[in-house]
Amino acid sequence: MSIIVQKYGGSSVADAGRIKNVARRIAATRQRGSGVVAVVSAMGDTTDHLIDLAHKISPSPPPREMDLLLSTGEIVSCTLVAMALNEMGHKAISLSGGQAGIQTDTAHTRARITGLDPSRIHKELEQGHTVIVAGFQGVTEGMDVTTLGRGASDLTAVALAIGLKAERCEIYTDVEGIYTADPRLVPQARKLKEIGFEEMLELANYGAKMQPRSIELAAAYTMPVLVCSSFVDAPGTLIHGGLSMENRNKVAGVAADRNVAKITVLGVPDRPGIAATVFEPLAREGISVDTIVQNASVDRLTDLTFTVARTEAQRALEVTEPVARSIGARGCASAQNLAKVSVVGTGMQNAPGYAATMFRALYDAGINIEMITTSEIRITCIVDEAKVPEAVRALHAAFQLEKE
Amino acid sequence: MSIIVQKYGGSSVADAGRIKNVARRIAATRQRGSGVVAVVSAMGDTTDHLIDLAHKISPSPPPREMDLLLSTGEIVSCTLVAMALNEMGHKAISLSGGQAGIQTDTAHTRARITGLDPSRIHKELEQGHTVIVAGFQGVTEGMDVTTLGRGASDLTAVALAIGLKAERCEIYTDVEGIYTADPRLVPQARKLKEIGFEEMLELANYGAKMQPRSIELAAAYTMPVLVCSSFVDAPGTLIHGGLSMENRNKVAGVAADRNVAKITVLGVPDRPGIAATVFEPLAREGISVDTIVQNASVDRLTDLTFTVARTEAQRALEVTEPVARSIGARGCASAQNLAKVSVVGTGMQNAPGYAATMFRALYDAGINIEMITTSEIRITCIVDEAKVPEAVRALHAAFQLEKE
Repeated sequence: MSIIVQKYGGSSVADAGRIKNVARRIAATRQRGSGVVAVVSAMGDTTDHLIDLAHKISPSPPPREMDLLLSTGEIVSCTLVAMALNEMGHKAISLSGGQAGIQTDTAHTRARITGLDPSRIHKELEQGHTVIVAGFQGVTEGMDVTTLGRGASDLTAVALAIGLKAERCEIYTDVEGIYTADPRLVPQARKLKEIGFEEMLELANYGAKMQPRSIELAAAYTMPVLVCSSFVDAPGTLIHGGLSMENRNKVAGVAADRNVAKITVLGVPDRPGIAATVFEPLAREGISVDTIVQNASVDRLTDLTFTVARTEAQRALEVTEPVARSIGARGCASAQNLAKVSVVGTGMQNAPGYAATMFRALYDAGINIEMITTSEIRITCIVDEAKVPEAVRALHAAFQLEKE
Repeated sequence: MSIIVQKYGGSSVADAGRIKNVARRIAATRQRGSGVVAVVSAMGDTTDHLIDLAHKISPSPPPREMDLLLSTGEIVSCTLVAMALNEMGHKAISLSGGQAGIQTDTAHTRARITGLDPSRIHKELEQGHTVIVAGFQGVTEGMDVTTLGRGASDLTAVALAIGLKAERCEIYTDVEGIYTADPRLVPQARKLKEIGFEEMLELANYGAKMQPRSIELAAAYTMPVLVCSSFVDAPGTLIHGGLSMENRNKVAGVAADRNVAKITVLGVPDRPGIAATVFEPLAREGISVDTIVQNASVDRLTDLTFTVARTEAQRALEVTEPVARSIGARGCASAQNLAKVSVVGTGMQNAPGYAATMFRALYDAGINIEMITTSEIRITCIVDEAKVPEAVRALHAAFQLEKE
């Protein structure tokens, strides 16, 4: 029997009515003849409520306790989905992450999956059960409950799909699929029928609504992932590795990420080892540095600029200021209200002119480019956050993404 | 190091402020030099909310799913108590029932504890941790989560106290201890300093606020149980097996249970095997029958009356009516608004006159006795529910329970 793994996000299971709706979708898949393993997130904003509750008691609760607390959200929703299926006459059983065999390391609140023991799931499927699994969680060798990081129910689903050798992984969410740009910003945005793993990874990293770690994992095992709506019946977007050449030679979409702040270390003496001196303390604090730009030096002095998530800007500044003093730099400056807009597509690898088109489109729209960063299949410009809607619309038009 | 097991009920952990208060009590015990294992119930009416949520989805959810769902309530509260202790600088760790080593059979929603593996708790205590355990739950051999029945956090606490060879088990609740009668009915009611296991068991079965199964278990292993308030600092009531002779020769208290209905099978032919024919179908349906009275037969016909919990009266009637027809009885009658009032005390074993005093007191108060049932240390009268307050007050006065 072929197995399909499905994942339903928090908004898809936000109340009893939606849970019944999810159960109907699962039952329909089951009736088409596949074994179904469905991963569910916590209902609505349950996770935020639990975090608030914890913070009323402790500003920084121990990560192990936090994980055991938060894991209850997904357990509640998976038992309710199982109940709804049973009520409809479909045998179903819910499993916590640990019961489902998801083994992790002990890095609480951001654990990594170290293994999967699918024996319990296989046993339940053989007995004709549909299996509902609590997303976002696993268990250590010592039987402590861990969570895999925010949004990691996607990761649970992809990992289970791989471990169970599923036909594919289906991600049900509140959007209909992956678009050429955010439809709220660009009314002409077009839903993609398919997209390659690498492009999806860049889109996910730069603003599209799926967890990047899940895409990486799916790509590593070439597990096809279908992203579609849990509310409307419409074809979604298939993320896979077998795109035709034609489909590969294009810009796939425009992404935007508003969570960007910039820190500049001014007047840095240009000598070997300076970059390491600046970035090692940030790494030790667990602050992810994104784009780094170092200008050509003038009189053996240079400016070193980097971006971090806006939520980490204050901490990054506190870490960097004493370092700047210690290396004899002139000081630090920071700017909060920035965003990244990115053009993503495998087509860009071999064809020149994409970057020029992008810069020209932003210039014509009167948008100043603060920094530029590129990968093989992505060009990103950092711009004023207020300009994001205009920038995305300008790029969508310049690359004619509204056309099939 | 001596170990004390404490249990905090749902009202004691109903919000963040109360959770911090519980953490302070636990910390104070820890600072007096004992290792502390604290069992907690779900916050406030969490369990009822979860049951409501399940019933929105299914009128009769599968018991296995119900157990996994309900188990989350206690996990939330135990992680929060552990966080509060850590915030106060006391190392603490929370454990689910399964992590705490509580093994049960597979009778979901009313599982029985089959074993306890205390190794994880001992390991944590040795590392200087205070251990917070989710009450009311355990795990089967197959790693499925079970619950032990309503109010069974008391049972978790007593079982852990026995398994860990604790010095004693302390039950913290919203009353200050065990009283000679419900203080809301009898203002003169007196808090008992101590009470024997058998008397407490009768009181618990007949209305006092503690789970009877827990008392039975504590009695079987002579584990002393202290019942006291989590809100005020006042000496509680110690339930133990070592009462002095003097303390044993008394009425301990008056209990009342309002959850009583009566069913009478009228005109039953008085021949052997009738009782079995009537009660076996009830047992098969899992309906607990309490008091049974069979009148002397007149013309080889008799009336057979029994009581059940009021919540089960309708079901009991549905089971019994066809049976009554099949044995040629005249029919069934039922009455819902009944209650039991009981006088409990080891003193009654050897001294006559207690029953007479009881019946006289009720008669003087104008209360009709519907049925009578006795154990070695208890006399129970079934009366009109509306008469409970007067009955309890009359009995409290007749046995002079306000006096030490």
